[in-house]
Amino acid sequence: MSSKGRIQDTTLSNLIMSADDAAALIPSGATVGMSGFTGSGYPKSVPLALAKRIEAAHAAGNPFKIKVWSGASTGPELDGALAKADAIEFRLPYNSDPVARDKINKGQMDYFDIHLSQVAPLVWEGFLGNLDIALIEVSGITAEGALIPSSSIGNNKTWLDRADKIILEVNRWQSEALNGMHDIYYGTALPPHRVPIPLVRPDDRIGQPHFRVDREKIIGIVETDAPDRNAPFSPPDDVAKAIAGHLLEFFAHEVKMGRLTKNLLPLQSGVGNVTNAVLAGLIDAPYENLTSFTEVIQDGMLDMLDAGKLRMASATAFSLSPEAAERLNNEAERYRHKLILRPQEISNHPELVRRLGCIAMNGLIEADIYGNVNSTHVMGSRIQNGIGGSGDFARNAYLSIFMTHSTAKKGAISAIVPQASHVDHITQDVHVIVTEQGLADLRGLSPKQRAKVIIANCAHPAYRPMLEDYYARALKTAYGLHAPNILSEALSWHQRYVETGSMLVK
Amino acid sequence: MSSKGRIQDTTLSNLIMSADDAAALIPSGATVGMSGFTGSGYPKSVPLALAKRIEAAHAAGNPFKIKVWSGASTGPELDGALAKADAIEFRLPYNSDPVARDKINKGQMDYFDIHLSQVAPLVWEGFLGNLDIALIEVSGITAEGALIPSSSIGNNKTWLDRADKIILEVNRWQSEALNGMHDIYYGTALPPHRVPIPLVRPDDRIGQPHFRVDREKIIGIVETDAPDRNAPFSPPDDVAKAIAGHLLEFFAHEVKMGRLTKNLLPLQSGVGNVTNAVLAGLIDAPYENLTSFTEVIQDGMLDMLDAGKLRMASATAFSLSPEAAERLNNEAERYRHKLILRPQEISNHPELVRRLGCIAMNGLIEADIYGNVNSTHVMGSRIQNGIGGSGDFARNAYLSIFMTHSTAKKGAISAIVPQASHVDHITQDVHVIVTEQGLADLRGLSPKQRAKVIIANCAHPAYRPMLEDYYARALKTAYGLHAPNILSEALSWHQRYVETGSMLVK
Repeated sequence: MSSKGRIQDTTLSNLIMSADDAAALIPSGATVGMSGFTGSGYPKSVPLALAKRIEAAHAAGNPFKIKVWSGASTGPELDGALAKADAIEFRLPYNSDPVARDKINKGQMDYFDIHLSQVAPLVWEGFLGNLDIALIEVSGITAEGALIPSSSIGNNKTWLDRADKIILEVNRWQSEALNGMHDIYYGTALPPHRVPIPLVRPDDRIGQPHFRVDREKIIGIVETDAPDRNAPFSPPDDVAKAIAGHLLEFFAHEVKMGRLTKNLLPLQSGVGNVTNAVLAGLIDAPYENLTSFTEVIQDGMLDMLDAGKLRMASATAFSLSPEAAERLNNEAERYRHKLILRPQEISNHPELVRRLGCIAMNGLIEADIYGNVNSTHVMGSRIQNGIGGSGDFARNAYLSIFMTHSTAKKGAISAIVPQASHVDHITQDVHVIVTEQGLADLRGLSPKQRAKVIIANCAHPAYRPMLEDYYARALKTAYGLHAPNILSEALSWHQRYVETGSMLVK
Repeated sequence: MSSKGRIQDTTLSNLIMSADDAAALIPSGATVGMSGFTGSGYPKSVPLALAKRIEAAHAAGNPFKIKVWSGASTGPELDGALAKADAIEFRLPYNSDPVARDKINKGQMDYFDIHLSQVAPLVWEGFLGNLDIALIEVSGITAEGALIPSSSIGNNKTWLDRADKIILEVNRWQSEALNGMHDIYYGTALPPHRVPIPLVRPDDRIGQPHFRVDREKIIGIVETDAPDRNAPFSPPDDVAKAIAGHLLEFFAHEVKMGRLTKNLLPLQSGVGNVTNAVLAGLIDAPYENLTSFTEVIQDGMLDMLDAGKLRMASATAFSLSPEAAERLNNEAERYRHKLILRPQEISNHPELVRRLGCIAMNGLIEADIYGNVNSTHVMGSRIQNGIGGSGDFARNAYLSIFMTHSTAKKGAISAIVPQASHVDHITQDVHVIVTEQGLADLRGLSPKQRAKVIIANCAHPAYRPMLEDYYARALKTAYGLHAPNILSEALSWHQRYVETGSMLVK
């Protein structure tokens, strides 16, 4: 199909321009709301051109930086290129780009990660300042001038509504079959005018398939033909399979105890190897008619749909391997009515997560013996990615599960530590922790009861005696014995890692 | 009025018994769901009798312990007496009793504090085990056998519905004018059957005034005439007034910027001196037609109602001084239609807090330079009270504000520290921190930007140079410069306090 076919509204054709010309419309100091979520649906052409422009400005001795807002992570053509050009003054609400991460951790770029459901409300409330420009990838423009979303929704509705000016990238690489898969809810408001969100099943469509847009605000349209940052899928390793095994055993136990049914409840899952192992395990497990209410649709979910295990999935974005993306595009008609993409304000909304009773499955960097979880900061100071939607889901979930390998860096780091060096999920929001060693069911346990089961079930044998020793001594000497600690040692494992390269005592 | 008049359903009169006889119906090992929230509406007679019974059992060498669930804090006749008798094996979801606190911190009693909105769902989900007995104070029983709630609702609806057996205390000390003030919502369900909660204004009544009860489950009724744990009101000191002054200035600024209107938004406030200073300040401020959607109705709110500033208040309990309690009882007709008491699952529901856009105002024990807040654990290990509803409100509020004196223990403890020794509210959930020194508006700031404004605006001058020094050195040496720390010093202030009695270097 020709690119022209993607822009059905011919009155907009005078706005079609090159990426360089569009990038020239973005001034230094601008706050730019970009599309993009987990490497899908982000603009791929104008950010590259802008990075070039900014590099040239810097070479000429002229300062030039912008503030970048997005849905979540984007791709190397956006965060990577702009970070490399030292073009980003401030970034929110999520980043996973390695170049940007390095700049942030060198103190060269300000970044604030935010609960993904809260970005749009914070912007509407006026708490984050003015949005100058929206730069949004779409998969097409209808004859009536409405925008057909791309492979992610993210905050695009809010960026389009709030920005002073709009630049569009129309990407013909995206499947035309995406049209109709989206559900854009226009019922949000500022308090005191908010009303209940009328969604009671993951399947419910409560909005419309296309974005509204004020065409007076559009200042440029760039045609592209570029793939998303689709990363190859690596099959689950033995550790991931062991974690999945423990979790599936737990589900079976919960069904037996009458706390879950054979339909389970809507699944939310982070992206990655461990999650894919869980999803693969669910294909062979005796559950039926499952649903997913989550942030991201990944390979494993397509497999579950194919296997007839998953009835439907609701998310705000795809995050697929190249093979799965091709499968989706080739058989879009078959998948289309089983997949819904929503604004991240809705896909992650606390009201909906609690109402639907999601089973939240997320990863972690470290958990402490009392069940506090660090998802973001390596050694308490170095940001990995960001909190993302994990807080939206974990606090409001029916079951809040965190999964991890029990060690990292070939055993040099224990995922179970005396005290978390940073906290993203407080112990109250952590129901279950799973490692390849085993599963800790923390529901209804006091801190000391938690410590025993976490150390016994989740810690790696190389670290278990060290944790037992720490805990036993804390019980004798702590200021308070509700959650006993040893203040001089609580963060000493992290310090040892920084100093020696290992948390193990050599 | 005679106590008989409080029990209109005469078919229940054969169940009236002494507190000792009722206490004899509670076996060792039982899980007992008690009424009570912030010292109001808790059973006052049977727990005392039970404590006597358990003390006698212990004296005879017989083990006897129970598990105690409640709404929130109760009074000395309940938590105090049972803790003193070593009668409590496990306690949830909140405690502020000094005797119980001491037992917990000596490691003699297991305790787990839970987000107050989540207690009822966790019980219905079956995650906390069976509830054997409900022990509930009511203010009366109607001719049809429905229960007229007392001065708090808490989890009473859930305890009555879930318990195998029920013991009632009918307290004629409670005003008869409470009748009609309550709104018990019976629309909750387990997923996948949950539906939107049909409340869009703090004023909305969505339930019924009385509890349903299965009379077959009632095994005893005890008549009492005993006051709530109403504590004397201490007028705000200069520090509290300074904090209130900073906050009122901030509100004025937000109105000027168009981010708040003259009606503000529904106020949530923790209990205490500082909050009462804020409420007192609001009486003289140019706001009108205010509302409150909160946990607890305290003295300052009655004053605001009297002053015509507050239109109405919604909560789950009263927490009044003896004088204010008398005022409420004497003029109940005037107050009745402006006050609504709801189950804590509803008063604190994330869905409603986010929809209504509450302004959340809570206290803290310490905050770190990045804005992580510790509300519960002194020196990271010794529990003070519990997280209560602060997490329900802070994460979902329109504005999340934390207030504190900048020091405690006559300056020996700084409320602003390098790293929080325990985290209840992650930095993302903390918009504003206020001390008598000033106000830090953290919205949209990166960690390093936060550190600068918290140290400059909130820290006490005695600690500010120490914080500046720590932060400056962290910036040079930390593993990552996103949220720079010094692992060997991050908790050293706490350690110094434990060892020397002061966080200051001597």
